[in-house]
Amino acid sequence: MSKHVLAQNQYGKAENRIVKITRQGNDGAWHEIRDLNVSVALRGEFRAVHHTGDNGNCLPTDTTKNTVYAFAKEHGVASPEAFGILLARHFVSSQPVIHEAQIRVEEFTWDRIPVPTRPEQHSFVRKGQEVRTAQITYSGSTGQLQVVSGLKELTVMNSTNSEFHGFIKDRYTTLQEAYDRILATKVTARWAHSVAAAGADDFDWDRSYTQVRRHMLEAFAETYSYSLQQTLNAMAERVLDHCPTVNEVRLNLPNKHHFLVDLEPFGLKNDNEVYYAADRMYGLIEGTVHRDGVQPVIATSDWITA
Amino acid sequence: MSKHVLAQNQYGKAENRIVKITRQGNDGAWHEIRDLNVSVALRGEFRAVHHTGDNGNCLPTDTTKNTVYAFAKEHGVASPEAFGILLARHFVSSQPVIHEAQIRVEEFTWDRIPVPTRPEQHSFVRKGQEVRTAQITYSGSTGQLQVVSGLKELTVMNSTNSEFHGFIKDRYTTLQEAYDRILATKVTARWAHSVAAAGADDFDWDRSYTQVRRHMLEAFAETYSYSLQQTLNAMAERVLDHCPTVNEVRLNLPNKHHFLVDLEPFGLKNDNEVYYAADRMYGLIEGTVHRDGVQPVIATSDWITA
Amino acid sequence: MSKHVLAQNQYGKAENRIVKITRQGNDGAWHEIRDLNVSVALRGEFRAVHHTGDNGNCLPTDTTKNTVYAFAKEHGVASPEAFGILLARHFVSSQPVIHEAQIRVEEFTWDRIPVPTRPEQHSFVRKGQEVRTAQITYSGSTGQLQVVSGLKELTVMNSTNSEFHGFIKDRYTTLQEAYDRILATKVTARWAHSVAAAGADDFDWDRSYTQVRRHMLEAFAETYSYSLQQTLNAMAERVLDHCPTVNEVRLNLPNKHHFLVDLEPFGLKNDNEVYYAADRMYGLIEGTVHRDGVQPVIATSDWITA
Amino acid sequence: MSKHVLAQNQYGKAENRIVKITRQGNDGAWHEIRDLNVSVALRGEFRAVHHTGDNGNCLPTDTTKNTVYAFAKEHGVASPEAFGILLARHFVSSQPVIHEAQIRVEEFTWDRIPVPTRPEQHSFVRKGQEVRTAQITYSGSTGQLQVVSGLKELTVMNSTNSEFHGFIKDRYTTLQEAYDRILATKVTARWAHSVAAAGADDFDWDRSYTQVRRHMLEAFAETYSYSLQQTLNAMAERVLDHCPTVNEVRLNLPNKHHFLVDLEPFGLKNDNEVYYAADRMYGLIEGTVHRDGVQPVIATSDWITA
Repeated sequence: MSKHVLAQNQYGKAENRIVKITRQGNDGAWHEIRDLNVSVALRGEFRAVHHTGDNGNCLPTDTTKNTVYAFAKEHGVASPEAFGILLARHFVSSQPVIHEAQIRVEEFTWDRIPVPTRPEQHSFVRKGQEVRTAQITYSGSTGQLQVVSGLKELTVMNSTNSEFHGFIKDRYTTLQEAYDRILATKVTARWAHSVAAAGADDFDWDRSYTQVRRHMLEAFAETYSYSLQQTLNAMAERVLDHCPTVNEVRLNLPNKHHFLVDLEPFGLKNDNEVYYAADRMYGLIEGTVHRDGVQPVIATSDWITA
Repeated sequence: MSKHVLAQNQYGKAENRIVKITRQGNDGAWHEIRDLNVSVALRGEFRAVHHTGDNGNCLPTDTTKNTVYAFAKEHGVASPEAFGILLARHFVSSQPVIHEAQIRVEEFTWDRIPVPTRPEQHSFVRKGQEVRTAQITYSGSTGQLQVVSGLKELTVMNSTNSEFHGFIKDRYTTLQEAYDRILATKVTARWAHSVAAAGADDFDWDRSYTQVRRHMLEAFAETYSYSLQQTLNAMAERVLDHCPTVNEVRLNLPNKHHFLVDLEPFGLKNDNEVYYAADRMYGLIEGTVHRDGVQPVIATSDWITA
Repeated sequence: MSKHVLAQNQYGKAENRIVKITRQGNDGAWHEIRDLNVSVALRGEFRAVHHTGDNGNCLPTDTTKNTVYAFAKEHGVASPEAFGILLARHFVSSQPVIHEAQIRVEEFTWDRIPVPTRPEQHSFVRKGQEVRTAQITYSGSTGQLQVVSGLKELTVMNSTNSEFHGFIKDRYTTLQEAYDRILATKVTARWAHSVAAAGADDFDWDRSYTQVRRHMLEAFAETYSYSLQQTLNAMAERVLDHCPTVNEVRLNLPNKHHFLVDLEPFGLKNDNEVYYAADRMYGLIEGTVHRDGVQPVIATSDWITA
Repeated sequence: MSKHVLAQNQYGKAENRIVKITRQGNDGAWHEIRDLNVSVALRGEFRAVHHTGDNGNCLPTDTTKNTVYAFAKEHGVASPEAFGILLARHFVSSQPVIHEAQIRVEEFTWDRIPVPTRPEQHSFVRKGQEVRTAQITYSGSTGQLQVVSGLKELTVMNSTNSEFHGFIKDRYTTLQEAYDRILATKVTARWAHSVAAAGADDFDWDRSYTQVRRHMLEAFAETYSYSLQQTLNAMAERVLDHCPTVNEVRLNLPNKHHFLVDLEPFGLKNDNEVYYAADRMYGLIEGTVHRDGVQPVIATSDWITA
């Protein structure tokens, strides 16, 4: 008997890399692919596992891995979210000791390689831009399903239409006011869906993803910016304005600084032409914007690295 | 006027890399170094910055960077925690619009290079083992100070004294029971200090760190393990048992699988000698253990990568 | 006086990250960007620098960095290759002690963000697919100019039309013959240009790059493959066949294994649908193919990591 | 029949991660571990594999992987070099079409965890400092065996005793002369052994490694430096002076810049106390020093990243 308290705990197999091929057409020669990295976390009655090593309540992480692969065959992969919902519901419903399951998915997307001699049936080049993400949490006791979609590693830049001035000056301030600067960031975004959308079997997750991504990019490009915070807010509000089933948006935006190089020592004028792209240190701007009356659900404690 | 709600938000300069040299002895020839990566996050009244780009309430991230470097000179770096406490208190007290500050520190440690011809005064080799971490949060309104110390990237292995069996079998289970296996993990640990310890100016953070680290390693080595969960719990309890000012321990332990290679096709018997060290997928075991009657404060949502 | 011999040596500033904006149109509102990582290596008469610390022959690495930024302003960045040629010639001609200069460039490319309300003037999203590379070596004594273009991190996959069988079987062989497998690789390619092309001021490096890239991708997609070696050779030969100014192609192709998951324990048939994408270990296939009568120049000793 | 020429080519399984446990003592309770990453590259008569996909001459990369694991059982792992020599000789001697084999090994080293309650038999913590490397090349036609040992990721720093001045000034030079600076670098070193040593079955590779490492560290610490080139040369010469079986040393030394932070704007004097540790760009100093009369063999074309 332990005198200390076991609080939040969870376990499962992380980073199950899975590629699912679906053959289409009469002859099955047209291939569709989904390329995922699936992580499973189970929560429940696991005190004995921790206190005595009695594994009677422990579904092995290896089994959770097998389940991921078997489900891809049995149910297909309609989308990261749909696949995650299936898995989360399964784990909770299959074992009474599992009270909650969280599935996290990363998706890597591919373009087709144009092939002069035949249709683009089965040749792909990895897109390599953003990674799509999804986090699905299903609780057996409350029956609550929470879906947070997202993306990461989407790097964007405005080479003008960005200023920064009027800020607080204290003893340690040396920054000059800027009236025309580069604004660049590597977007990590997560957005929570309304329960109605998340619970609907026919919700089109891929279409929703495409829309959110487009509105965020457009807002980034169209906002004349006086701070990265303002751009963050504009991106989040644009999504809420145009995507009625999204309730909440959280953005983590490292300010990828581009410093104007001083060319005067060489007798040259740098008219906003030559920049040094810095790695570290970087500003890091984070924020959540949600629909009025909605309870925010996206974790805020993640520490994002540029 | 926005129709949506700006919820949790913060900003600051992340990953300020700083090396602080302190000269000791009569001639200052004996050097001590602290090598830190310091991140600043400020929380407060920043709605206007987000909604209109009015930066009147915005202390630039560049200023927070300058402050880190200036404070290293003005106040020295006694420890990651002490340095973070100074910075967190400063930001909150210096600007009324800043209600809360969070400082995160990574520390990289160095050994001295033995020099045959003179004392080991100023030559160092980076230790390269774990990274020490600290997270300090200070709230101006409540006056509350929270200190979470930690470490990451500490890889440990028991080459025997680990079993795993008696687990649930379902339709998707293929794992064989194991009665002698390698148990290896890359430890990410965080532990919260009691308010009394955190608020005491003379608390010895370096000594506390050394003790927690030692007890965790010893518990890992001494625990005959029936599950990584059991080992996690033993490590956390050992710290709580021996370090009275620590109230809570959270561990994130990826199971770094070492699979026995099947050598039978080559007419060889593999008597627990030759293992394949796998990268992905991996089990991920996470848990918090705290002292009875204490409210846990360590965020549980971080997603740790092996 | 040293009794040992100083052989090959070089130095310079590595990884100068530079973003160059060029304004076009009557009002300069249309922006073009080039985003480069430029490394400089100088070779020459540097024995005294090594033996006594006499820096009289040493052009500081800091100066080589300044030169990169100043040249971007003075000469623009027409292409990675053209920019590298300018820099290499400059270093060798400006200091007699510098006998040879090698410039290495990585280029990160960007797409324009579609903006509904105005032309796509100055908003960009990083493409994030392959990194374009160039290595320019100019020798003052011989006057020889060598240009090796390339790319890396281009991940491609054929989800069928790949077999592997008929191989050697020895005591340690357990691999089953495969008659329909996924073939995936992350391409690192380098190709050397004929001296005539490299020395011509009006050679269109961007057009050349686009052509080589297209022919490699098409050859990858169109080749019915019996080994990754065969695919490598087909990709290289396709480039030599269609790009007359390319003399030599070297490819480093890690075999990104996709293993068919065994679903039989779950009563399921895996008809080439569900794959496990492995990280390590991986096959690594490397080779150089060159035009007959040409002396190969591309270094073969690089060790490529998947 | 191809009209182009297949030049240098090689293939094999890369990055085979292997952990070998050896049990010692009467009861086998004392465990020794070697933790390796082994890569195999085979060279030989592989034209048909490339031109027609006829795999009759192809020993599968999967077989080379199996051989690595089987050899660890059959022959043990005395050292990275000894293990690599066994493997290289095996591949060349076992298949006539394989003319040359190159084995590359990375070794990760472990310390024992002190255990209060029993001997330190089987509990380890990964050292995490440098990675030890070895590259073994065996040619069947010449019978030549080449062994290059090395290390990487060994970060060292002198916090004083480093100057840099007297260098060339040209139009682009702005660097100030420095009379007391931090000198820090991340050492990548490779050293070639004389054929006699490499071919001797009883050569003590572990002892040789320890000696070379110690002499390099001592030379780094003891050299009062006027340039990183001078330090490089001193490190290489020290090894050649003290290790008679080493014929050649190559060092790749990124200059990990530590810039003194300007604290004057805050009314503070920075007396070489507070430094900013920069990531990129960095000076990169590379050089080979060899014993007089010896032909250098270490490849110089590797591009080292800081």
